Amino acid sequence: VELTILTDWLWTLGLLGLGVTYFIWDRLRKLPPGNEVMRALAAQIQSGALAFARRVGLVLAAFIVVAALLLFVAAGVRTAAAFVGGAVCAMLAAFSGLFAAVRANVRTAEAARYPGLPAALRTAFSGGAVAGLAVASVAVVGTGLLFLFGIRRPGVYEEIRFREFAEIVSGFAMGASSIALFARVGGGIFSKAADMGADLVGKVESEIPEDDPRNPATIADLVGDCAGDTAGMGADLFESCVAAVIATIAVGMTEATLGGYENRIAAVSLPLFAITVGLIASLAGVFVIRYLKPEKPAQALRMVQLASAGLFLLIMLGVVYALGFDMADEATGRVYGYFGPFWALLAGSLAGVAVGAINAAFTGPAAARRIADASATGPAANVLAGISAGFQSSVPALLVVCAAIGVSYAVSGLYGIAVAAVGMLATVGITMTVHAFGPIADNAGGIVQLGHLGPDARRVTDTLHTAGKESGSIITAFSICSAALTAIALYAAYASWVGLEGINLVNPVVVIGFLIGGAIPFAVAALTITSVTKAAGAVISEVRRQFAETPGIMEGTVAPDSARTVDVATRYALREMIAPGVLAVVAPVAVGAGLGVEALGGMLAGATVTGVLLALFMANAGSAWDMARQQIETALAGGGRGSDAHRAAIVGDTIGDPFKDTAGPSMNILIKLMSLVSLALVPWLLSLPINRGAGTREPLEPETMEAMLRIVTSLLG
Amino acid sequence: VELTILTDWLWTLGLLGLGVTYFIWDRLRKLPPGNEVMRALAAQIQSGALAFARRVGLVLAAFIVVAALLLFVAAGVRTAAAFVGGAVCAMLAAFSGLFAAVRANVRTAEAARYPGLPAALRTAFSGGAVAGLAVASVAVVGTGLLFLFGIRRPGVYEEIRFREFAEIVSGFAMGASSIALFARVGGGIFSKAADMGADLVGKVESEIPEDDPRNPATIADLVGDCAGDTAGMGADLFESCVAAVIATIAVGMTEATLGGYENRIAAVSLPLFAITVGLIASLAGVFVIRYLKPEKPAQALRMVQLASAGLFLLIMLGVVYALGFDMADEATGRVYGYFGPFWALLAGSLAGVAVGAINAAFTGPAAARRIADASATGPAANVLAGISAGFQSSVPALLVVCAAIGVSYAVSGLYGIAVAAVGMLATVGITMTVHAFGPIADNAGGIVQLGHLGPDARRVTDTLHTAGKESGSIITAFSICSAALTAIALYAAYASWVGLEGINLVNPVVVIGFLIGGAIPFAVAALTITSVTKAAGAVISEVRRQFAETPGIMEGTVAPDSARTVDVATRYALREMIAPGVLAVVAPVAVGAGLGVEALGGMLAGATVTGVLLALFMANAGSAWDMARQQIETALAGGGRGSDAHRAAIVGDTIGDPFKDTAGPSMNILIKLMSLVSLALVPWLLSLPINRGAGTREPLEPETMEAMLRIVTSLLG
Repeated sequence: VELTILTDWLWTLGLLGLGVTYFIWDRLRKLPPGNEVMRALAAQIQSGALAFARRVGLVLAAFIVVAALLLFVAAGVRTAAAFVGGAVCAMLAAFSGLFAAVRANVRTAEAARYPGLPAALRTAFSGGAVAGLAVASVAVVGTGLLFLFGIRRPGVYEEIRFREFAEIVSGFAMGASSIALFARVGGGIFSKAADMGADLVGKVESEIPEDDPRNPATIADLVGDCAGDTAGMGADLFESCVAAVIATIAVGMTEATLGGYENRIAAVSLPLFAITVGLIASLAGVFVIRYLKPEKPAQALRMVQLASAGLFLLIMLGVVYALGFDMADEATGRVYGYFGPFWALLAGSLAGVAVGAINAAFTGPAAARRIADASATGPAANVLAGISAGFQSSVPALLVVCAAIGVSYAVSGLYGIAVAAVGMLATVGITMTVHAFGPIADNAGGIVQLGHLGPDARRVTDTLHTAGKESGSIITAFSICSAALTAIALYAAYASWVGLEGINLVNPVVVIGFLIGGAIPFAVAALTITSVTKAAGAVISEVRRQFAETPGIMEGTVAPDSARTVDVATRYALREMIAPGVLAVVAPVAVGAGLGVEALGGMLAGATVTGVLLALFMANAGSAWDMARQQIETALAGGGRGSDAHRAAIVGDTIGDPFKDTAGPSMNILIKLMSLVSLALVPWLLSLPINRGAGTREPLEPETMEAMLRIVTSLLG
Repeated sequence: VELTILTDWLWTLGLLGLGVTYFIWDRLRKLPPGNEVMRALAAQIQSGALAFARRVGLVLAAFIVVAALLLFVAAGVRTAAAFVGGAVCAMLAAFSGLFAAVRANVRTAEAARYPGLPAALRTAFSGGAVAGLAVASVAVVGTGLLFLFGIRRPGVYEEIRFREFAEIVSGFAMGASSIALFARVGGGIFSKAADMGADLVGKVESEIPEDDPRNPATIADLVGDCAGDTAGMGADLFESCVAAVIATIAVGMTEATLGGYENRIAAVSLPLFAITVGLIASLAGVFVIRYLKPEKPAQALRMVQLASAGLFLLIMLGVVYALGFDMADEATGRVYGYFGPFWALLAGSLAGVAVGAINAAFTGPAAARRIADASATGPAANVLAGISAGFQSSVPALLVVCAAIGVSYAVSGLYGIAVAAVGMLATVGITMTVHAFGPIADNAGGIVQLGHLGPDARRVTDTLHTAGKESGSIITAFSICSAALTAIALYAAYASWVGLEGINLVNPVVVIGFLIGGAIPFAVAALTITSVTKAAGAVISEVRRQFAETPGIMEGTVAPDSARTVDVATRYALREMIAPGVLAVVAPVAVGAGLGVEALGGMLAGATVTGVLLALFMANAGSAWDMARQQIETALAGGGRGSDAHRAAIVGDTIGDPFKDTAGPSMNILIKLMSLVSLALVPWLLSLPINRGAGTREPLEPETMEAMLRIVTSLLG
């Protein structure tokens, strides 16, 4: 328990992390930005990203102000401040990566030209590191301050205050979650609309190559890669990380099996230590990359992740020992021992690695080869092969999640499941670094192409791009499974807060709840896929209009109005993210108030199972199609570019785009946001007549309930 | 209770139904079979169907003999006889429709030539009636005898014997269910492999039109339409009907809320009365068709279904009153009154109608139009629009199921949910009649085309085909929702038999079961889609081989070897249905033995939610694509045949084929079979150490348990 004295000050290490991030960013900025053409291109991408960020930021700022005012009036300054804090942290996590990416891209292209691969790898990786370390540092600072002001009065180490925690946690989590939804769904719609628009009018209709400067959607496409993959994923992982920490604290506070004050204080401290140690391990990983062989970038990216995870586990072994757990399940008499929570961390961490390996096996070269071979029979065969691969790959990944749940439950009870989610997400810094590497390499390739930097530079960026894409698809699968674990941890927290004895699947009302819950991811998938096609249609119209009204564009004498294409895509992205957001908030409210808290529990379970499976299906099918097309284009399979198989593969890849980059990732936020909304609604729900007598176990103290009730009723009206 | 004396003799009305079926069949056979060319074609289709049936029948017979022998040795003659009975009933239900269809097709074609639409409608409908009434009559005879010998000793009206019921019900249900799985999955693979094979080599590669006599896969395609849509659907609906009756009896016997012996005997009699009355109502519907306007066949088909449902409900109002229910929930003090179960029947019946209406709205002309419009942008847009429509349409259909569960639970408790499933399925006779109408009309169109009977006849068969297709897609959605209700009824029976207080979703082991269960439909979808493409590949190779080795086929001088193509498709269909079958049986065994009976309950719930949603998604997306293609071909949208939009629509339709006719329908059987296997496993599972103390409520009497245990252990090894 001695160690827990440090808990209040862990957030300062987050500040240190931010300092290092700034240092890396500063060095990155000073790298050579290339010749005049490249600088002009980079400026266009930067201003496009800025336009996207400004517009989204304005809408989000308005949303934050309104929501914060409501919270201030109804629940006081603390909750409002926590909400703003959560939202600002999420925006920081989302946009710092975006801004780093649009500067790292051109510098990577320049390094690819001269001196070559090792320097280009380091540059792109530095850009990714800014995104990754920002996410991890902000998470440490945010949750650390949340803990300090929310749970413990500064300087008073003996007290855990449930009431402030409940007030603040609902504000902070909702702030982070709503921003994540906007960034992930909006970014996904923007990026795929621009991508499909650029492809369909450019490559198919006008027969100009990819990344052609004449295409008014080319810049939007490059901006979209950064917006979707850095801003969206950054906010998603940040929110998962925060939600996992909060769920762990919540279960740690309320779960009966933990017993004793000393265990409880260790239990609420553990997740904060874990993400701080994860940040340190990520920092170490970032500096290790320069000592790895740059010839095999994919392997180097994998190595840094494993090194960080190893270091994290090593330090945590000591931390868990020092925290001095002494847990036992009173009901079964099971003793969890000193290291129980460590095994849960290990289970989560290993599950993350295993999910990546499975994803690589099912969407890797062998699977892609089967799809590429099927493409010879036409687009229908290609699509069926991809769908089949997607369905198939979702099963083993889910089994890994099940294994993580089983092991962590066995070693630490319900608390262990939440800890496993933290274990999976603690090294978020390095994970996000590797993920953000992908769009930077992709962008660099685009700049090399647009700036005519020659085939040698292109080969370098192609190597980086392939490595980034592979890691990216692995991390997407990882993010889904971590969202699943987080959702289940939040689910345990929900049951714990409501004080439910159980959520009984034999009760038909619960059956109705889980059937409805199961249907919601299907509805959101339909909405987001339709949104992408709508937004892509708008981009296509805009590109066609520019080509028709300004013939000079095609002749190469007039520059296309790229800013306007960015604007069109941004506007649609903003409009189309409303419906999924409303559904995610309204559905739990309706079921909880209409069918009761137990049915709402069933609903969360139903949404989690179909949400995770659909997300895995769509993400994996999407990357398998992508890789199949790439195999045909690089003549590893099929007939090469321009063949029938290639045309078929393009169909699959186009279908896969909204699957893997919009609809699939939306599921992550959906299941987490639904759980968070339900958690926040607990006091209000328990006050309704339908839920009278629902909580048979002792819930939180009355004044906590009352405080949360005030927040929630204010939010609803 | 007076009425219950009749229960023992209801099966004789089933015999009467079989008599009427034979009468219709005999009259159908005597209708003019057309000219020589048509008779030759019909003979080819018949011998193809016979070859398919013989081969499948042989495999099934071997399977039945082995399983029955095992049962005889371990559990005695009763169980073995019940198993054989269930399997034989299911085969009768499956194959009588197939044989009627391959005779009605040519006679419908002849009637379309002369005298025209009204006669052609009546002829096709008579063929459907043979299929439909056979299913309904066999269900009445089978479950009636099951009740007589399984539950009550003939002539002793005062006794309900649980032990014999348990022994016999597991045998009968497993017999019916395994045949249904083989027929549905095998029929689906056969029909779509032949379809895709005929299309891809014929239309795409060799550019010969659909239904061309030179294509060696044409006959297989026509046989496949009958095999998939009559044999598969017949066995599926038969099994749903039987399973719903069995679940109702099981819940009626064990559910505590029913109380009192008199209620119990009424409760176990009700489902038998319901399906007998349903058979009578279906018979009435079959005779009503001749008084409806034949100009609008789709409307006529809808009318007979509504008329039958109305008559059914009217009679049941009296029956339920006469049974004299006096139910109350002792726990809540809620009184369900005389008519409680009637409202549950009504809820089920109305839900069936509502699901049909929703399906029509989401896959009907308006939805198809949107997909057809999207097709102009290419195959990717077509596929995305179809997938989006499929996702979207699954939501409201599921909400209808939820409403049926909620209402029936409110009016009669858990027993009500099982009764609602019976209410939905009781008029299975007329439902199956209308469904079997589709492939007959489709086949008739093929014969008109192959026999060059002229455009007037083709117009008639096209009108019938469109009507059949619309009704078919509605009934597919209906069959999914009825399977969902049945699965939930079986689920309630499972919880009741195990004696579980609850299946608690807060228990992580249940969560694991729930997640694994959710993944199984995804795995089966992957398996069946891959099977279809594999089998289609084999058919394509065979067709290509025949074209290459016998040039005379293309010149029209040599007849293709159609029988061999049928053989190839049959062989693959048989081989590929093993894996899904094994998975459906092994998964519940593994989870029940490895994680316990409560986790197995979670698994069934998880499999039901994803299974139903995937089934609706795939069935609806498939029919929407189909209709979009049809709209383009009839120039209602897009650019007509041969346009880019048409080519895009063909891609969607080809993807939709295995979706709607193989993978989607497989889900129906999957979720029911998993529940039935779990139900049969209950005694064995409770004997395992892991499940010691699991059943906290009083389960069935010990000797029942012991008897069931003997059956199950024998089955397992």
